[in-house]
Amino acid sequence: MEDKILNEGKVLPGDILKVDCFLNHRIDVPFLLEMGEEIARLYKDEPVNKILTIETSGIPIAFAAAQYMNVPVVFVKKSKSGNISDDVYSSRVASFTRKNVYDAVVSKEFLNSEDKVLVIDDFLAKGNALTGLIDIINQAGATLLGCAIAIEKGFQGGGDELRAKGVRVDSLAIIESMTESSLSFRK
Amino acid sequence: MEDKILNEGKVLPGDILKVDCFLNHRIDVPFLLEMGEEIARLYKDEPVNKILTIETSGIPIAFAAAQYMNVPVVFVKKSKSGNISDDVYSSRVASFTRKNVYDAVVSKEFLNSEDKVLVIDDFLAKGNALTGLIDIINQAGATLLGCAIAIEKGFQGGGDELRAKGVRVDSLAIIESMTESSLSFRK
Repeated sequence: MEDKILNEGKVLPGDILKVDCFLNHRIDVPFLLEMGEEIARLYKDEPVNKILTIETSGIPIAFAAAQYMNVPVVFVKKSKSGNISDDVYSSRVASFTRKNVYDAVVSKEFLNSEDKVLVIDDFLAKGNALTGLIDIINQAGATLLGCAIAIEKGFQGGGDELRAKGVRVDSLAIIESMTESSLSFRK
Repeated sequence: MEDKILNEGKVLPGDILKVDCFLNHRIDVPFLLEMGEEIARLYKDEPVNKILTIETSGIPIAFAAAQYMNVPVVFVKKSKSGNISDDVYSSRVASFTRKNVYDAVVSKEFLNSEDKVLVIDDFLAKGNALTGLIDIINQAGATLLGCAIAIEKGFQGGGDELRAKGVRVDSLAIIESMTESSLSFRK
């Protein structure tokens, strides 16, 4: 993952890491399958029965991991309408990249207190999306076993805040610092 | 696919077929892999080098098919901002289900005149999204080899209009008519 980011990623102004060429617009299928296999390996001793992700770019990573773990994926929807019905769990999330606010929404039908959940997402920056997903898992009375993330921006602190609260967070790459000309990873 | 729709789908008022439990919210991974394998079989004699889909629910189907075809997936983004930059192809689409209008957008970097494209999507109703994707493929000077669709609402006519224009359209199930109590397929 670190090589992939160094070779194919681009840093844009505003602490944006663009990995459109393999993760967020064009999907490098064999690479995502490798990521999925690695996530399955990390959680092989945990009784995960459901993967929860959030649209859009988390979906193919979650799908890849689910193939190796033999569990279904539920993807949380982003709703901007503000009309939340009774048959869903929802949590308000402020997006760092898009600079907007949305409701993360999941049907009650697809998440319940029996579920042992692995959360998968593409990026972890300030942790706002993950915090919303964890809120939803708590509302459902489900058990959170951990969060597997493709790329964590370690310097934004969201991952470490979650770890400090006792949440298991596994990131395939953790960026310690980045500028338009350099990028370093946490070892 | 027909059995899956009959067993797990729900018809809602307004000609909406809800298949949230395996396709649009909860993802039944083994079933989507079967769909992907079937799509790969249908296009095994075509020189497809790229799969184009549109967020969100097309992505896991495209990802599944891509594994069997050894090609990358590019997913077209839905933008509501109306701010279209020079480095993308875009096409205005009116959504049947959501009753809104968006710009379908793809970076020029990820689609070019060398590409031989298979389009994959979850639903085909009036064909508005597909028409937008085909417009984008034409703008890029790429070649469209066909469209593979999970569920076509045959009674809304979009698929047959495209076929009449010479576009290859393969749908895994074509619904001929549906009401809240009955559903019939085109044979």
